[in-house]
Amino acid sequence: MSGSMYGTHFSIATWGESHGPGIGVVIDGCPAGLPLSEEDIQLFLDRRKPGQTRYATPRKESDTVEILSGVFEGRTTGTPISLLVRNTNQHSKDYGNLKDCYRPGHADYTFDAKYGFRDYRGGGRSSGRETIGRVAAGAVAAKILTELGIHIQAYTKAIGPCSIPEASYHMEEIAQNPFHMPNNEMAKQAEEYLDACMQHQDSAGGIIECRITGCPAGLGEPVFDKLDARLAQAVLSIGAVKGIEFGDGFAAAQKSGSTNNDAFRISESGTVAKLTNHAGGILGGISDGSTILFRAAIKPTPSIAQQQNTVTAAHEETSITIHGRHDPIIVPRAVVVVEAMAAITIVDLLFSNLSSRMEYLKKIYFLPDHTEK
Amino acid sequence: MSGSMYGTHFSIATWGESHGPGIGVVIDGCPAGLPLSEEDIQLFLDRRKPGQTRYATPRKESDTVEILSGVFEGRTTGTPISLLVRNTNQHSKDYGNLKDCYRPGHADYTFDAKYGFRDYRGGGRSSGRETIGRVAAGAVAAKILTELGIHIQAYTKAIGPCSIPEASYHMEEIAQNPFHMPNNEMAKQAEEYLDACMQHQDSAGGIIECRITGCPAGLGEPVFDKLDARLAQAVLSIGAVKGIEFGDGFAAAQKSGSTNNDAFRISESGTVAKLTNHAGGILGGISDGSTILFRAAIKPTPSIAQQQNTVTAAHEETSITIHGRHDPIIVPRAVVVVEAMAAITIVDLLFSNLSSRMEYLKKIYFLPDHTEK
Amino acid sequence: MSGSMYGTHFSIATWGESHGPGIGVVIDGCPAGLPLSEEDIQLFLDRRKPGQTRYATPRKESDTVEILSGVFEGRTTGTPISLLVRNTNQHSKDYGNLKDCYRPGHADYTFDAKYGFRDYRGGGRSSGRETIGRVAAGAVAAKILTELGIHIQAYTKAIGPCSIPEASYHMEEIAQNPFHMPNNEMAKQAEEYLDACMQHQDSAGGIIECRITGCPAGLGEPVFDKLDARLAQAVLSIGAVKGIEFGDGFAAAQKSGSTNNDAFRISESGTVAKLTNHAGGILGGISDGSTILFRAAIKPTPSIAQQQNTVTAAHEETSITIHGRHDPIIVPRAVVVVEAMAAITIVDLLFSNLSSRMEYLKKIYFLPDHTEK
Amino acid sequence: MSGSMYGTHFSIATWGESHGPGIGVVIDGCPAGLPLSEEDIQLFLDRRKPGQTRYATPRKESDTVEILSGVFEGRTTGTPISLLVRNTNQHSKDYGNLKDCYRPGHADYTFDAKYGFRDYRGGGRSSGRETIGRVAAGAVAAKILTELGIHIQAYTKAIGPCSIPEASYHMEEIAQNPFHMPNNEMAKQAEEYLDACMQHQDSAGGIIECRITGCPAGLGEPVFDKLDARLAQAVLSIGAVKGIEFGDGFAAAQKSGSTNNDAFRISESGTVAKLTNHAGGILGGISDGSTILFRAAIKPTPSIAQQQNTVTAAHEETSITIHGRHDPIIVPRAVVVVEAMAAITIVDLLFSNLSSRMEYLKKIYFLPDHTEK
Repeated sequence: MSGSMYGTHFSIATWGESHGPGIGVVIDGCPAGLPLSEEDIQLFLDRRKPGQTRYATPRKESDTVEILSGVFEGRTTGTPISLLVRNTNQHSKDYGNLKDCYRPGHADYTFDAKYGFRDYRGGGRSSGRETIGRVAAGAVAAKILTELGIHIQAYTKAIGPCSIPEASYHMEEIAQNPFHMPNNEMAKQAEEYLDACMQHQDSAGGIIECRITGCPAGLGEPVFDKLDARLAQAVLSIGAVKGIEFGDGFAAAQKSGSTNNDAFRISESGTVAKLTNHAGGILGGISDGSTILFRAAIKPTPSIAQQQNTVTAAHEETSITIHGRHDPIIVPRAVVVVEAMAAITIVDLLFSNLSSRMEYLKKIYFLPDHTEK
Repeated sequence: MSGSMYGTHFSIATWGESHGPGIGVVIDGCPAGLPLSEEDIQLFLDRRKPGQTRYATPRKESDTVEILSGVFEGRTTGTPISLLVRNTNQHSKDYGNLKDCYRPGHADYTFDAKYGFRDYRGGGRSSGRETIGRVAAGAVAAKILTELGIHIQAYTKAIGPCSIPEASYHMEEIAQNPFHMPNNEMAKQAEEYLDACMQHQDSAGGIIECRITGCPAGLGEPVFDKLDARLAQAVLSIGAVKGIEFGDGFAAAQKSGSTNNDAFRISESGTVAKLTNHAGGILGGISDGSTILFRAAIKPTPSIAQQQNTVTAAHEETSITIHGRHDPIIVPRAVVVVEAMAAITIVDLLFSNLSSRMEYLKKIYFLPDHTEK
Repeated sequence: MSGSMYGTHFSIATWGESHGPGIGVVIDGCPAGLPLSEEDIQLFLDRRKPGQTRYATPRKESDTVEILSGVFEGRTTGTPISLLVRNTNQHSKDYGNLKDCYRPGHADYTFDAKYGFRDYRGGGRSSGRETIGRVAAGAVAAKILTELGIHIQAYTKAIGPCSIPEASYHMEEIAQNPFHMPNNEMAKQAEEYLDACMQHQDSAGGIIECRITGCPAGLGEPVFDKLDARLAQAVLSIGAVKGIEFGDGFAAAQKSGSTNNDAFRISESGTVAKLTNHAGGILGGISDGSTILFRAAIKPTPSIAQQQNTVTAAHEETSITIHGRHDPIIVPRAVVVVEAMAAITIVDLLFSNLSSRMEYLKKIYFLPDHTEK
Repeated sequence: MSGSMYGTHFSIATWGESHGPGIGVVIDGCPAGLPLSEEDIQLFLDRRKPGQTRYATPRKESDTVEILSGVFEGRTTGTPISLLVRNTNQHSKDYGNLKDCYRPGHADYTFDAKYGFRDYRGGGRSSGRETIGRVAAGAVAAKILTELGIHIQAYTKAIGPCSIPEASYHMEEIAQNPFHMPNNEMAKQAEEYLDACMQHQDSAGGIIECRITGCPAGLGEPVFDKLDARLAQAVLSIGAVKGIEFGDGFAAAQKSGSTNNDAFRISESGTVAKLTNHAGGILGGISDGSTILFRAAIKPTPSIAQQQNTVTAAHEETSITIHGRHDPIIVPRAVVVVEAMAAITIVDLLFSNLSSRMEYLKKIYFLPDHTEK
């Protein structure tokens, strides 16, 4: 394993370079009997597709998915699901001049340092197109979660300095602006901010927030596979993410125990609930039944048309101006990637939790169709 | 695997409850030939030991480590290293009243929700004593890193509102105050802040920063096992950590590409270097040879003597007052835990990187003692 | 991971050398709520204990187990179970002369070739005492299986040339002779054979057979984690095992399809059954509900008192005579080790199978205590 | 992970059903810098291709491989290698009558028992076509081994009763007969035996032997990842394999220590060698530098045209006659599959061994290009 596989029970192996024949993923561990079609996956892929607004790269890529295995007569069979998206809009020539030169903020130098050479066309494996495999697998994971009543929604909380305070969230507006922000007014301000960035041949970053609802209490494994630890790996593994925080996050570091603790209460339906949710739905690394909430910081797109100092592979100083079709901000397109990684992680921990109690085992293995035999 | 194992190549399995017979760890994958003694490990354990200042629990625990296997004539043999620390100062009676009641901010409720019941004595497996296994394993990992010229140092950047700006760091002062802060003056202010907290039967949180130097460029695996992703899992898996950020972290979300990118340059010794380090030493999830830098947010200790609303296991509302010997802040004692988790992760990725190039394989398997055979 | 960890869902990490302070195992992934006591484990350990017959080493080792974690008020808590057996009867001096000399048939040379040096006392990690960790973990796995109605029984089918044909099995006699053979008469012949071996300062091997009953159809994962593939790894990982076969095994290679296929039928209770069991209860790597059956070949003990040619660590030819307290045959003591490895493997695959169907997930996650929240 | 992933360091994920769009594999962990072309892989695939002799299914499948990622300018990049073989010669109608009926000796029933339903066309995932992914990955592994001077050769030792004693091996004849037998005369007898089988609408099994030469001493991890244990899992995971033995294997069970032990000697070049190789090149689960040797028992093809008793999915007894294009023996086509699985396993253990000694680490991480930085 060299980093392109993820998940212990619901395991995925992604592959593909931006300018190779295609991008894809193999999912091993999807339960049998899940209704699944290419449309289910295409819906997710279309959310990350470029060329949809003027704040994203104008490249036109259809990113059409093909299911190569694991589905029969409309349902998953329990065997690996292989998903393929052919690359169709590569302009390799755009990148020829980057062959011997390290773009600041990119992985060009570190790939060379690691492997001795690299596929320099469009970032190769470190391209944003790598996320196609994640999103395709995330669509399958999300389908499993939907069947179990668990829902994941990510959205853009901030673009550059344009940040929406929680009190001003209008969740229904997320689908009404190109940035997936829960506040159309702030989205307008973000547009203006981005227009200014683009005029200066510059780029912007932002913050994505994610909420997971309907998750039973008890998910996450004590110690190293805590729910928050696993979500942190999953989300930090997305290129350009520079930080993650759960619940009150970094703000909690300045609070006192009396203001940070969430008091427990009994809900109207008689279950254990909390008066507040500073913890972000996770206590001791295990879900507590309330909304799981985290935020991820996304750095500004490193590809900018301004001139930048850099060096060549031959260790000579030079300068570089990056032209081409780049996103001035990747935050809106990354929203679905965050959802995908969260979905994959939650499914993996749901499966892990199945063997946490003897009573669960008995529930399954004392089924009539087993015991008769 | 249910979450108490970590690492693919340098793998650890920790175990133990706060009020059971002991706590320990098994390390599988430590190379043969590393000089190792109980003193090496004890030095690390003593850094997390309670009872050393009035800002930590007054419990006296010697936390003496015993090496049970894997070391022969002062060197590691390549076989598993089992480390044991006996529990010696348990006052189980202190916790009897918590048997049926969920402490706010603790894992009591979530353990019950997961497993159906729990070892309620002192938090059981969710106790801070669980970190003994991590620190013991981290001492071994740190010893490997030292042999390779890699150094990890964590310290307290902030306690509550008392935060040290980077310009005021005096690294030599870290060892001169009880909080491991790189600024004795700020440590004094933190003392006053904590005294006030304790007077109000309240607790405090803070921020730990960590620097890794001497790390070769090329560590970290593209996609899911990015260096930052793995460090994020490792650090978020420590109880009470609510967030992590690398380099400029959340601040990068508000910056532009032109101010966030680190320009490359050629160092005096002719190698690739950077003019700045906004990235925190990691590009595309792979180390770039500069200092790796991250910060972790630690929440305030949830155990406070103030009365808090909560519920019982029988789902009745009640209130609770937690007495006992609790740390008003865990940040200073967590510094060495952060170092330990970082060390274990770096070692794991160093080992993973050994098979990244055909030339590395040839370097090892064309050694005379192999080829002769 | 360097080979001392096993299992993906029910994971164990064993450790310990024959002449170090002790031997043990950490089990991560045991479900909560299993009744477990030290007696449960001791019963298994006592079956492998030496010194019980004159055909085993006369070393007296009490091999008393201590549960260090993971059990509270008589039930497992879901957290790691750490088990410790202290070494008490080491005569390190017995082995001093083996420091620089490679015993034929042992791992002395290969450990040196791998690690550069070795703990030469009693074989160190390659000693038969290493199996204590396996047997202790196997006792826990067997306890889980018993709760689910699955039963594993291994026994000695052959000692040297004294082999019992299946038609002559008397299963009730297994407990009536020192070799755990299902035929007391053949056990007598084996005694004579062993007496002759011992007189010639020689040793013997044999065959262990294992039957697993009550196992539901559907266990084992297609392709690489086939039930037989996993059992093969588990059993071949026991020192001295040189082969494994399932059902008719090597004999099947000489048969035709028409005589090797097992015809299906409907049992009296209306379930799918087979007229014969040439397959050994496994079809396509998945259990078919009938008895799982395999045989393992055990080589003769390599430690013999006859003079043997060998070489020194300094690469000089020499001869060696191995004195000390060695088993003339390890087959009878290995019976429980085979059972243990089978039990651990079956449990691991039972847990893996829990996420094989959407309907299983719904069975667990639509439990009232989850859906209310 | 549900069984279609294998290997810890050199990891593969295979996928595909016999009658779906295609079959393939993703390899994660191939080192950068290995020369690799589609021809390298096609050579291996052509060895398992059907339709080449009258003793194999007459289906014509081109089984042409496409490299979808991980190779740039003729060399591996260190990122995942995705390989795709489109299915082109499916006759799904052939299998329509098998939809509701369980073929004896096949995985039809066990797949239904596991997943609740199955892709019944041609065996779906349990088809022999599944091995395409293994063979494609094995070609890459074999290429790595060749660069390191390690060579793997499998061949047919026996078909039904036609078994070649080791004294009659003529290795150069392996390539001269359709069965890959090291004795052309015995191959002739096997032809006659198979002709008789086919006349009786019956099938045959056999034994494949495999030799690995050039392997350094020191490979394999003590305890659970012993070299023989891992090879056993790898080979038993191939459909139709019913047993495996190393060196003298089951015959060793009848020998005495004095005749089974291999005496050590010093070779002419001054290295440690053995006078005999009863152990099959493995001591204590670790390679000893001599030839690694194992044998696998392959059952007769279960698909035969004779009428057989069986049951339906609705649990009614019936009989079945299997027509279609089936191999009367799969042994010759399985030879390259055994080689592939052995190659993948050896590479995985070679990589695992890289972190076995501190001196290896220093060899890599003290390279000038690292230490300068």
